[in-house]
Amino acid sequence: MKKNDTAKKALALHKKMGGKIRITPAMPIKSRADMSLQYTPGVAAVSTAVAKNNKLARDYTIKGKMIAVISDGSAVLGLGNIGALGALPVMEGKAALFKAFANVDAFPIVLDTQNVDEIVETIIRIAPAFGGINLEDFAAPNCFEIEERVKAALDIPVMHDDQHGTAIAVLAALINAAHVVKKDFKKLKVVVAGAGAAGTAVTKLLLKAGVKDVIVLDRKGTLSKTRADLSGHKQALAEITNPRGIDGTLQDALRGADAVLGVSGPGLMKAADVQLMAQKAIVFAMANPTPEIMPEEAKKGGAAVIGTGRSDYPNQINNSLVFPGIFRGALDNKVKKITDEMKLKAAKNLAALVKKPTAEKIVPGPFDRGVVEAVAKAVR
Amino acid sequence: MKKNDTAKKALALHKKMGGKIRITPAMPIKSRADMSLQYTPGVAAVSTAVAKNNKLARDYTIKGKMIAVISDGSAVLGLGNIGALGALPVMEGKAALFKAFANVDAFPIVLDTQNVDEIVETIIRIAPAFGGINLEDFAAPNCFEIEERVKAALDIPVMHDDQHGTAIAVLAALINAAHVVKKDFKKLKVVVAGAGAAGTAVTKLLLKAGVKDVIVLDRKGTLSKTRADLSGHKQALAEITNPRGIDGTLQDALRGADAVLGVSGPGLMKAADVQLMAQKAIVFAMANPTPEIMPEEAKKGGAAVIGTGRSDYPNQINNSLVFPGIFRGALDNKVKKITDEMKLKAAKNLAALVKKPTAEKIVPGPFDRGVVEAVAKAVR
Repeated sequence: MKKNDTAKKALALHKKMGGKIRITPAMPIKSRADMSLQYTPGVAAVSTAVAKNNKLARDYTIKGKMIAVISDGSAVLGLGNIGALGALPVMEGKAALFKAFANVDAFPIVLDTQNVDEIVETIIRIAPAFGGINLEDFAAPNCFEIEERVKAALDIPVMHDDQHGTAIAVLAALINAAHVVKKDFKKLKVVVAGAGAAGTAVTKLLLKAGVKDVIVLDRKGTLSKTRADLSGHKQALAEITNPRGIDGTLQDALRGADAVLGVSGPGLMKAADVQLMAQKAIVFAMANPTPEIMPEEAKKGGAAVIGTGRSDYPNQINNSLVFPGIFRGALDNKVKKITDEMKLKAAKNLAALVKKPTAEKIVPGPFDRGVVEAVAKAVR
Repeated sequence: MKKNDTAKKALALHKKMGGKIRITPAMPIKSRADMSLQYTPGVAAVSTAVAKNNKLARDYTIKGKMIAVISDGSAVLGLGNIGALGALPVMEGKAALFKAFANVDAFPIVLDTQNVDEIVETIIRIAPAFGGINLEDFAAPNCFEIEERVKAALDIPVMHDDQHGTAIAVLAALINAAHVVKKDFKKLKVVVAGAGAAGTAVTKLLLKAGVKDVIVLDRKGTLSKTRADLSGHKQALAEITNPRGIDGTLQDALRGADAVLGVSGPGLMKAADVQLMAQKAIVFAMANPTPEIMPEEAKKGGAAVIGTGRSDYPNQINNSLVFPGIFRGALDNKVKKITDEMKLKAAKNLAALVKKPTAEKIVPGPFDRGVVEAVAKAVR
């Protein structure tokens, strides 16, 4: 389908739907008898019991199954800072996917503020009805502080999906890509192009998984200990990456690299850049909808395994493989925090779903059987 | 059903349901093609359009149909201040009723704060996804300030149902009760027992409807201009009510009164109190689940028309007659404020649904045909 066709069809479909989710009663309310049990006077016994022992909320209320999908609209898809209402169609879509993929009930909340303190306190105040919080499309660097503070304040799982969902999907894909090109995963030289939410989380998870040589780049070049302009999360990344101390451009970093992971924006690389890399190069160009380098161009440069975020090319590396299973597992097992160990396990389980990885098939598709279960069983 | 039976059955049913509402996708998502229209890349066109023109959110997102049912748990049913999680079963029930009665999608939000400033700012910040706000079970006097401030800040309808839903139902019932006892509605001498959220709103709406002689009581006695201990909303009520300047007890107020509206708590009145009233007295004892006076006792005192909040006696005067229709009408007609004129019209329409009012039938039941439509058509 051409780009304009998709846009037109999507607009028409959204207008027809008038919102992508609906609220439905769990059981019918058709008589006074139904009402007297689900509402007054019967509900008083339930409210009293839950008020006395808050832990009962997981059994007697939606808290046992409801995830909040929350955004401030500051970094929506590749569209940037388009605000709360602009973000709403994406958050609704995510809520619909939660149900379609994993039978998880999720509700979209879009915030009319982009102030970190206000965001944190608002999420904490509305948290009681929810069994988990999926943070979505918050811009870096605010996203790091927001996630940390909300996590620390609540006893339900909190995950910024742009960070960790992406990181888990990328790790799964890279494990299988290394297998395809017959290189030792832990010895890969990896370049992460982009130091935002996704780039930061991908880098940290790769290090946790045992990869030793990761170079991260922001728009100005490689992050390194010699960069005087770094602070916050970029400075922290510079401390733990770039072991060969490469100072310079993307091209400098790519020289001899085994894999490049694009988490920045369209048109970053050309075929000539791929040619700088080691033999059998792995190229993941995950900017949406337009990748850092188009697959055809990457192939021209000699890439052996190519992944994107798109559904119209092989190897769609997308967090829709991850978030439904993460929260399915968290709810089923009453997990309070999503740990690094769970993320590593989820990535390995996801990779293992592809029995015989090939250059055209390093990750399962989101509609493949077993995806949700593979991820969910890592979260316990 | 006995009280304990209801409680047991309600607890068992709630445990079986695990929350009374579910999220369902508006349309199935079963293929990559579905996903590309409802999620990326298609959703980008929708987000862009809505971000450019926020008014489109009503057509393209859930904002056109979603109501937030919000509580801080400070005055839940007759249970008092039981907090956010205690309130959640009631708010879920209300969301389920919204759908069952009026096909309105509603989602429960319970707040982990009872501070007025925090409540107001939190509601404003989460408002973008909603087409209306139903405030529920906020205690007086905070409820007045919260409603006023949220209403002023937002361009979607905001209604504290304990106030206005109750007031509309009571006005409808009183119109028909006056008809049954063949008294001129506007000349009724009315005693409102209770100066909280419901009592205040009932009183104001009766005055708007043309009733001249209303006396309101709090626990200490009649509200009057001579009471030195009054402030805030009670002082304001004293200014506009009690034209005969009655200072004293409930009994002093009841002497010669045509109607008493109980919006306080159980056991306030006895048969002897009803005997103080005028001939063909109207007694609405609406405390839940135990009324101010049981219907049998009121009858013993000579009451001609008796209403309660209960489903097991005739004349259940309950805001479930009102809130579904109010928000159905508000959404359908893109109404930004619920005005006093709409409330009066809603009460009159509701009263008119009972073609031939009798002492046993002054209001329709919530499952009667036409209830939602009668109320909804007043909101435009």
